[in-house]
Amino acid sequence: MKNILWQHIQKVKKSVPLIHNITNYVVMNNTANALLAAGASPIMSHAQSEVEDMVKICQALVINIGTLDEYWSISMMKAAKKANELGKPWILDPVGAGATPYRNEIIAELLQLKPTIIRANASEIMALAKASNLPTKGVDSTAESTEAIEAAKSLNKEFNATVCISGETDIIIDKDQKLSLKNGDALMAKVTGLGCSASAITAAFAAIIENKFEATAAAMVLMGVCGEIAAKNSAGPGSLQLNLLDKLYNISEEEFLSHFKISE
Amino acid sequence: MKNILWQHIQKVKKSVPLIHNITNYVVMNNTANALLAAGASPIMSHAQSEVEDMVKICQALVINIGTLDEYWSISMMKAAKKANELGKPWILDPVGAGATPYRNEIIAELLQLKPTIIRANASEIMALAKASNLPTKGVDSTAESTEAIEAAKSLNKEFNATVCISGETDIIIDKDQKLSLKNGDALMAKVTGLGCSASAITAAFAAIIENKFEATAAAMVLMGVCGEIAAKNSAGPGSLQLNLLDKLYNISEEEFLSHFKISE
Amino acid sequence: MKNILWQHIQKVKKSVPLIHNITNYVVMNNTANALLAAGASPIMSHAQSEVEDMVKICQALVINIGTLDEYWSISMMKAAKKANELGKPWILDPVGAGATPYRNEIIAELLQLKPTIIRANASEIMALAKASNLPTKGVDSTAESTEAIEAAKSLNKEFNATVCISGETDIIIDKDQKLSLKNGDALMAKVTGLGCSASAITAAFAAIIENKFEATAAAMVLMGVCGEIAAKNSAGPGSLQLNLLDKLYNISEEEFLSHFKISE
Repeated sequence: MKNILWQHIQKVKKSVPLIHNITNYVVMNNTANALLAAGASPIMSHAQSEVEDMVKICQALVINIGTLDEYWSISMMKAAKKANELGKPWILDPVGAGATPYRNEIIAELLQLKPTIIRANASEIMALAKASNLPTKGVDSTAESTEAIEAAKSLNKEFNATVCISGETDIIIDKDQKLSLKNGDALMAKVTGLGCSASAITAAFAAIIENKFEATAAAMVLMGVCGEIAAKNSAGPGSLQLNLLDKLYNISEEEFLSHFKISE
Repeated sequence: MKNILWQHIQKVKKSVPLIHNITNYVVMNNTANALLAAGASPIMSHAQSEVEDMVKICQALVINIGTLDEYWSISMMKAAKKANELGKPWILDPVGAGATPYRNEIIAELLQLKPTIIRANASEIMALAKASNLPTKGVDSTAESTEAIEAAKSLNKEFNATVCISGETDIIIDKDQKLSLKNGDALMAKVTGLGCSASAITAAFAAIIENKFEATAAAMVLMGVCGEIAAKNSAGPGSLQLNLLDKLYNISEEEFLSHFKISE
Repeated sequence: MKNILWQHIQKVKKSVPLIHNITNYVVMNNTANALLAAGASPIMSHAQSEVEDMVKICQALVINIGTLDEYWSISMMKAAKKANELGKPWILDPVGAGATPYRNEIIAELLQLKPTIIRANASEIMALAKASNLPTKGVDSTAESTEAIEAAKSLNKEFNATVCISGETDIIIDKDQKLSLKNGDALMAKVTGLGCSASAITAAFAAIIENKFEATAAAMVLMGVCGEIAAKNSAGPGSLQLNLLDKLYNISEEEFLSHFKISE
């Protein structure tokens, strides 16, 4: 697995996929920089007059609802439908799922459009399942919890999406496959939007790698390993944000392979 | 005072208050990171369909008009009214007050909703007083000027808000209380949005500390001391932005107490 | 030329021009910080209710269509018309020109309002010429290509705008004048929005320097030299973003003159 994922990382850098982001205001800059550092090319565009045309020229789409509103949610639907029509992968990052009725309503609509991959934390994953009236059993919000994993399995079954529950351990679920990724550092939670960057990088991998389970794993391990190495050299979250971008750009095979922590 | 403010800082870090920000596009990322570094948890949300529900789950609200428009100003009013209804503190940062008639009109409406705390520079404070037809005497824009202090006292009296005039010296006014804070560094003015970060951190303290005069003082001293220490290790404004976030995260009691400069 | 451009840089720092930016969400923070570091004062404002009033109090305007939509495009038109009416310079940064029909339509309308300066990469410059039905001959996208230079000359002739084609070499065209700037570093392309920062800084120079060809040259050389020096001390794109802001702030005459690479 180690070597396959490293090859995927190299493949993305060589291919420079064009990624269309309809994402939140807070993370646009960092997301664009994370995509560039990992070897992809970002486009941020949300106008109802052009999102469909942007989907046409890009190789994957990210929909992140962090700062959604009535206008943006229409753009998200239009773009997701167009991606489906053209057979292009799209990633859903349901930031803040469960926080408000409005957010849950938009999420339920987006799920009906069957995202290729869903990446979210455990409480968001459980909120997604609930918003779609799928069975859930509780409110525990660690990725390793049985409740979150059951919700992820329900989402995978109902919508045919690869599901990544991110947290101290990241868990990736797809049909009978399950991976647990143990990289990362607690300081990463003190930088806003690293989960959003992970979703965008997942899109870059989904654009190039046919196997979406492996694409998601490669993206999440890359973020985890780079974040872990960057955190070691960071006095705080300000430095970490910068060091992470540097490491996404210059990580070596040896660094990657020696930090890799994954269990099936 | 020193020790009380340090205890407030620790209390915020332990409580991790959830802060709802309706703020400007320029500073959203930095504001979220400043809140995380100081120990709070940020939410950025502006949709008219959900701002009231967001106010419900948060402990304080920030309204920052930096990049306001017709849609966002309605969201601001809705959120402020809901905060009042629920007895939650809200902070007004009237960025660019006085720059255009439209901005003054929105500010006058927001003031009618009686913000708990107002934080702004001296010229903005004077513009607020003028927009509300309160007596002002001039256009001098240093915080220490008599004109700005008189405007702050009028605003405090009229709207019952704690008022912080920020500048080389920060001045906090509330009824018969007045504090002068002397921390900070001139380089801070070369980083965009540090005032906006100060307002957001003030909200985090107002969420937890009952005494709003002390809450405002703790937030402003924290920003001033951390900025001052960070500036000493910064070659320019790029480094300062990063070092400030690191320092907000890792400041020690000794650093805080030894840099503290305040006069009553 | 060297010494004239250095004097222009000093003149901007002394004058602190107020620059109105209607720009994209991705780069607002960096653009504001780049303007501050170079000695200007940024305003970001897009509300239809106030853009004309903001143009009145600023000394130059930047219109950057990176994340345009139907609302923002109206604000852009209003602001550009007001700048023309008041005889204030405005800079067009046509991000993503050619990517969608909608973008081309808005660009064609903005060009009719005759920007003072256009700054874009080679493929965008060719898309501008095409969107205005000016003669073009191909799709090569390096700044040095004959095709891009011909498109720039057509734009200059048709709209009377100084045109800067940015790339590995930056080329500035105005009537019979042409400059080639050779500063910069390949790593700069891995940081999002440095072109947008260059456009904003160009506005700061256009606000103060009467000769727009020299204003554009001074801004582009400043960005190129600072980026080149910053890149040498950067482990990756995260560090570069920060080091560039530091260098824009603290560049010395000796550094500037010794790195300067320009040919007429």
